[in-house]
Amino acid sequence: MTTKPSIPTVSIIGLGNLGRALAGAFLDQGYRTTVWNRSPAKADDLVARGAHRAATVAEALAAGELVIVCVLDYDTVSRLLTPAADALRGRILLNLTSGTPEPARELAAWVAGQGADYLDGAVYAVPQTIGTADAFVLYSGSSAVFETYREQLDLLGAPTFVGTDPGLASLYDVALLSGMYGMFAGFFQSVAVADSARIKATDITALLVPWLNGAAAALPGFAAEIDSGDYATETSNLDINTVGLANMLTATKAQGIGVDLLTPLQTLFERQIAQGHGSASLSRAIESLRPPR
Amino acid sequence: MTTKPSIPTVSIIGLGNLGRALAGAFLDQGYRTTVWNRSPAKADDLVARGAHRAATVAEALAAGELVIVCVLDYDTVSRLLTPAADALRGRILLNLTSGTPEPARELAAWVAGQGADYLDGAVYAVPQTIGTADAFVLYSGSSAVFETYREQLDLLGAPTFVGTDPGLASLYDVALLSGMYGMFAGFFQSVAVADSARIKATDITALLVPWLNGAAAALPGFAAEIDSGDYATETSNLDINTVGLANMLTATKAQGIGVDLLTPLQTLFERQIAQGHGSASLSRAIESLRPPR
Ligand SMILES: NC(=O)c1ccc[n+]([C@@H]2O[C@H](COP(=O)([O-])OP(=O)(O)OC[C@H]3O[C@@H](n4cnc5c(N)ncnc54)[C@H](OP(=O)(O)O)[C@@H]3O)[C@@H](O)[C@H]2O)c1
Ligand SMILES: NC(=O)c1ccc[n+]([C@@H]2O[C@H](COP(=O)([O-])OP(=O)(O)OC[C@H]3O[C@@H](n4cnc5c(N)ncnc54)[C@H](OP(=O)(O)O)[C@@H]3O)[C@@H](O)[C@H]2O)c1
Repeated sequence: MTTKPSIPTVSIIGLGNLGRALAGAFLDQGYRTTVWNRSPAKADDLVARGAHRAATVAEALAAGELVIVCVLDYDTVSRLLTPAADALRGRILLNLTSGTPEPARELAAWVAGQGADYLDGAVYAVPQTIGTADAFVLYSGSSAVFETYREQLDLLGAPTFVGTDPGLASLYDVALLSGMYGMFAGFFQSVAVADSARIKATDITALLVPWLNGAAAALPGFAAEIDSGDYATETSNLDINTVGLANMLTATKAQGIGVDLLTPLQTLFERQIAQGHGSASLSRAIESLRPPR
Repeated sequence: MTTKPSIPTVSIIGLGNLGRALAGAFLDQGYRTTVWNRSPAKADDLVARGAHRAATVAEALAAGELVIVCVLDYDTVSRLLTPAADALRGRILLNLTSGTPEPARELAAWVAGQGADYLDGAVYAVPQTIGTADAFVLYSGSSAVFETYREQLDLLGAPTFVGTDPGLASLYDVALLSGMYGMFAGFFQSVAVADSARIKATDITALLVPWLNGAAAALPGFAAEIDSGDYATETSNLDINTVGLANMLTATKAQGIGVDLLTPLQTLFERQIAQGHGSASLSRAIESLRPPR
């Protein structure tokens, strides 16, 4: 099923902001590209640029050897593909819809049952950066599909294959988005503290962004400690950070600002200290989050 | 009290990791530098490089026109200065000890009562980067001291004066450290999710750091929305983020990992949605943190 074609035909199902950018990347390279969207008007510009308009999902599946789906969520993917299941046989389905591991695994199994190959992808790009050096995409599922269609995947952003479990791309996505939302929580807390002293959000943020970029440079060192399990440190240990954070939270409350966003981190620190690890590196807080083995 | 001397004499009280780096920066430029530390041995290297060793805090105060204090915390500063209060008259006290706004204001008032000028500073550097382009210091308190000793302050790192309230440097410090701890919380959550799928901390962190640096680039836009109070958006609104975050938290729990670090952010989002702002920008979450006016 994954023998290399000279130039594969491509279909894109879902022409939202991201789907239109994906279709555009293939059209720019001269691929025979078929497009389908629930609201047909979103295909108009692409058709003017040379895309073939499919009237149905089944027609889009039939027209493309490599079929990319990029819609709202996994439920929508299933709802669109189920009635067109017959047209799936022999296709390569690349799902770039964002989601979580379990639905990805279920979809992959169902797609395999229809006689098609499945590759899942998590896109790290905004539509404007698709195909540029700023975009990267994590893939999981069929490694044969990843290898065979590498030239096509390269058109979207730097591709990385993270494993054959089709849920892995989504799992990496959950992990990376967790990091981003944590940073956003810190941003809100920072702006609220500044605001309590009438410092403008733009003023504190102008200092915060370079400060965060600098602090992020410490994370690979923490990660190495976590992987090695050796948390010995001569610099900033859990005791020092816990005292510092407690003082900060007290000062924050004195400004009339709540501290709910940061107390759970304090709890992770304290749990390690209670177990006798106060002189260990800050990075040992991860042990408070791991499930009991 | 702050008329400009040709070359001021400098004293450093507190020769921990940071204090020794500060003293070294002045010695390197040929300043007459006096040092004092509770454990005298930490002065040895500096004395070998030309520093004058003070036997007491009072002697250090008497020897330096510009006196820099850098010890564990504000309580320690008070405990060291109180018995030597007579020697403070006419001095410039620059306190680079980390702390929170209220103790800084109390110390500034007490120092003024002894007939000395006070400048507070929050240092953003590690000892190794003192005096390099990577270091910056925020100052608050006497603007006259900041202007008069600008040449000396430049030796430590890029100086910014943030206001005459002596507590302001510490307030900025609380705000910036809040941002950093939020990012650390996100890092731990990210590593825990990855770990649950046997992905190494170093592997997820290699992806996370550039991803966070990219996401940080969105913060100035959020800050501008917050300052303007105009939260209209065409891209990623509170509804979309709340659904996405809820799915992520469900997937995280399915991996056996707790979600306590991120649920408080979800609560901020939900409070805004409950008030009818689901289609507003993510940045509107700040309104959930502001005290009632
Ligand atoms: N935009 C980004 O920067 C970005 C980055 C990474 C990942 N993603 C992910 O990529 C996917 C698409 O994102 P997007 O930005 O393109 O979203 P979008 O602009 O909101 O487009 C959503 C797409 O889903 C379709 N859709 C929604 N409900 C449907 C239904 N019931 N039946 C059929 N089609 C339906 C929409 O069709 P209609 O046009 O008919 O409504 C549209 O094609 C999402 O999973 C998103 O998380 C986006
Ligand atoms: N290191 C950094 O990267 C950094 C960056 C920014 C801000 N800061 C801040 O700068 C300050 C000093 O940091 P550091 O890294 O130099 O700390 P450090 O290496 O732990 O040194 C602490 C200093 O405080 C003194 N001290 C502690 N308790 C004392 C007491 N009861 N009486 C007299 N002296 C006492 C110590 O004297 P002994 O030598 O006798 O113990 C030592 O000089 C802290 O407020 C810290 O938060 C540090």
